[in-house]
Amino acid sequence: MRHLLSTRDLSRDDAIHILDVAEDMADTQTREVRKLPTLRGKTVVNLFFEDSTRTRISFEAAAKRLSADVINFSAKGSSVSKGESLKDTAQTLEEMGADAVVIRHGASGAPHTLAASGWIDAGIVNAGDGTHEHPTQALLDAFTMRRRIHGTASRGRGLDGITVAIVGDILHSRVARSNVWLLSALGARTVFVGPPTLIPLDLTGWPAETSYDLDATLATQPEVVMMLRIQTERMKDAFFPSPHEYARRWGLDDERLARLGPDTIVMHPGPMNRGLEISSRAADSPQSTVREQVANGVSARMAVLYLLLSGERED
Amino acid sequence: MRHLLSTRDLSRDDAIHILDVAEDMADTQTREVRKLPTLRGKTVVNLFFEDSTRTRISFEAAAKRLSADVINFSAKGSSVSKGESLKDTAQTLEEMGADAVVIRHGASGAPHTLAASGWIDAGIVNAGDGTHEHPTQALLDAFTMRRRIHGTASRGRGLDGITVAIVGDILHSRVARSNVWLLSALGARTVFVGPPTLIPLDLTGWPAETSYDLDATLATQPEVVMMLRIQTERMKDAFFPSPHEYARRWGLDDERLARLGPDTIVMHPGPMNRGLEISSRAADSPQSTVREQVANGVSARMAVLYLLLSGERED
Amino acid sequence: MRHLLSTRDLSRDDAIHILDVAEDMADTQTREVRKLPTLRGKTVVNLFFEDSTRTRISFEAAAKRLSADVINFSAKGSSVSKGESLKDTAQTLEEMGADAVVIRHGASGAPHTLAASGWIDAGIVNAGDGTHEHPTQALLDAFTMRRRIHGTASRGRGLDGITVAIVGDILHSRVARSNVWLLSALGARTVFVGPPTLIPLDLTGWPAETSYDLDATLATQPEVVMMLRIQTERMKDAFFPSPHEYARRWGLDDERLARLGPDTIVMHPGPMNRGLEISSRAADSPQSTVREQVANGVSARMAVLYLLLSGERED
Repeated sequence: MRHLLSTRDLSRDDAIHILDVAEDMADTQTREVRKLPTLRGKTVVNLFFEDSTRTRISFEAAAKRLSADVINFSAKGSSVSKGESLKDTAQTLEEMGADAVVIRHGASGAPHTLAASGWIDAGIVNAGDGTHEHPTQALLDAFTMRRRIHGTASRGRGLDGITVAIVGDILHSRVARSNVWLLSALGARTVFVGPPTLIPLDLTGWPAETSYDLDATLATQPEVVMMLRIQTERMKDAFFPSPHEYARRWGLDDERLARLGPDTIVMHPGPMNRGLEISSRAADSPQSTVREQVANGVSARMAVLYLLLSGERED
Repeated sequence: MRHLLSTRDLSRDDAIHILDVAEDMADTQTREVRKLPTLRGKTVVNLFFEDSTRTRISFEAAAKRLSADVINFSAKGSSVSKGESLKDTAQTLEEMGADAVVIRHGASGAPHTLAASGWIDAGIVNAGDGTHEHPTQALLDAFTMRRRIHGTASRGRGLDGITVAIVGDILHSRVARSNVWLLSALGARTVFVGPPTLIPLDLTGWPAETSYDLDATLATQPEVVMMLRIQTERMKDAFFPSPHEYARRWGLDDERLARLGPDTIVMHPGPMNRGLEISSRAADSPQSTVREQVANGVSARMAVLYLLLSGERED
Repeated sequence: MRHLLSTRDLSRDDAIHILDVAEDMADTQTREVRKLPTLRGKTVVNLFFEDSTRTRISFEAAAKRLSADVINFSAKGSSVSKGESLKDTAQTLEEMGADAVVIRHGASGAPHTLAASGWIDAGIVNAGDGTHEHPTQALLDAFTMRRRIHGTASRGRGLDGITVAIVGDILHSRVARSNVWLLSALGARTVFVGPPTLIPLDLTGWPAETSYDLDATLATQPEVVMMLRIQTERMKDAFFPSPHEYARRWGLDDERLARLGPDTIVMHPGPMNRGLEISSRAADSPQSTVREQVANGVSARMAVLYLLLSGERED
């Protein structure tokens, strides 16, 4: 693997291979000494143009477990914020010997620009770009589903025949976008659920169906219900329902939780707005995978860094 | 040791054991290579809800000398500041594989909440919570006193028969609070000295005496005089004397320094307001332990992290 | 080497020795595993009173490649910004076991104060102080020139007979100041070029000539043309030409680039204001060493940290 920019680039075989390597990584995390010498001498730069402590420390933990050196580069207060171009930043990191650059950027497409530019030879990992993609989130989500469904027999398998309902502000969600492509590659069916104003009108070419009625979708017994985080700063928008209305119609509250089957998987990328898109009972229920998702995030990111930086990398 | 939340929980034997391990750690810091492989593969998260560079880098140095991986998590600008609950933050760190969480929080009791919650299995170290406690500060202070008084014969000993005058804004000082419990466990006597408005009225149950007259207390020749830092932002408060009045009545100025015996120990947790609670001459005098306290802080924190994360940890 | 405060302290032999060690370091950076065990157990503190992400991460990468532990100490929001004295900060770092302190400070002379004070035994590296010096920048610049000119036969050699034109706001440039002393020690000739208001009137004692006419200087075919970054915040100053005027008279634009010989070296310390002091074509031309300078910065800083912290350090 040369870069990880989008789940759209991943074939079924690619995706299963990454998930299988993540299984190997997860196994190492149950050992007494969790650290592997694999990436000793490699340098991973976390280049964050937006604050995202959770994502940053997940990548930092993943890189350190593989013995890489980690350099955190917050673009705030740096020459980048003084108008240095992405090109010059990229070339600087390249020349300093960055082997991988994990980039979080407010502009959709910035990681692709970086990777396509030829400015930098390092592996680029998209850690969230605007409303576009967040591929490691989709990988850890798929890994979590596969483990819940297939258990120890997960290796080599996809998510064939599974239905995943993704609920919330689809329009602005990079999590939804990355998930839909990966789920499709793995053989799963995706249903986007949310207020009509928050689902793209034109889904031509997207492997997803649409529903405006959460209860109707839940009645079909999807195997997975993935609640998206509401960006409360968007709530001022005229296209947004009131918080009360949102919770009542599209929130996973206690009553809806009670209607789910005992094997239905409840997911959330975190951080949660408890009481808004998800109730505390749902978040802490046995069906919830919120905590597993965090742990699996480290394993999935270890797998991605390993595939980018070890001998398996293609040129 | 499972957590370190408060010095109030420590028996005399506990306290002496930690100080003895800190002696071992201090010994390693005089070697050519100061680094120990003891905590290789362990992850220590510095979870700081308040800025405190000194405390953070002391813990960071301690963890790195023991070969642990350190992840700094400043809660500013993170999802925590966007309203994520302490519970969700804790579970996130747990799932990412944190073995110890060093927490600094503005709210008294936050580390106890974290430890009592069952949200997290990691060892919790209180690095200062509101006006409540700062146990590693008390440990490094006791360590410093013991070394000055007993020298190389310190191991196994307490501080029996020693009088410690703690001078300043006792009411808001977590340093004073943590010290009084630990000093009591180690057999020392504590006298709180300060303006009447800055010493709690009701000290029932506290193993401390009160004095409003610094000169009278110094005349009794206490073995230790510990000057607290004045939080200058509190000085606007009506209960606070003017800086001039404060320095004149409760500051360790040159004249008072001259009246101390040559073996009296002068302590300060730093950073000092030179000329306010302590004069430059007092701060830099042979009696002063200000610099030793910083060095001993690393040793004491190494001991705490070692006891929490190595085989000695109880379940 | 005890400290690195200024290039003015360096003899020709000193300078060549550092550049030769940097050659050794650069060789290690082409290996599969770039990490050396040399400084294991040593602690390098980056004490930055001003933001400078580029310089900080270059030192951080250099220290980590040598297996040192790195602690980043941004003085913003720390007790330092609450009025702690440089003395107390220095003593704190000393007691925490800092072996080297890399200091960036807005006040000219702060690193010298630290080194001369006796407050701290650690090696001090000046990473930029006010408008005064930035010695590792000059070292990486000289290293870059030597490699371009002498190639693999660089070891042991100076820059004898070379002319270097340094172009821009000389008055406020620590880069210019550090370069002029080092270039002189290495046998090169320096010409300062810029607007009359931005070149010191009195250059008595400085081994540099002055020119206000870039085109006349370029006509003499200097081996090196070093363009300085314009601090755009200075542009409001009455002594400063307009951006348009500046670019027209003192910028390295495409037309001037075309007049340079194919072997002329075009340098810039970065980050560049493309279109102001340098055109994009000049920045990306084969003559440009902008990218090499970044890579050489890591090698030069590895050499400095190695000389300060390994057995070669004098007392």
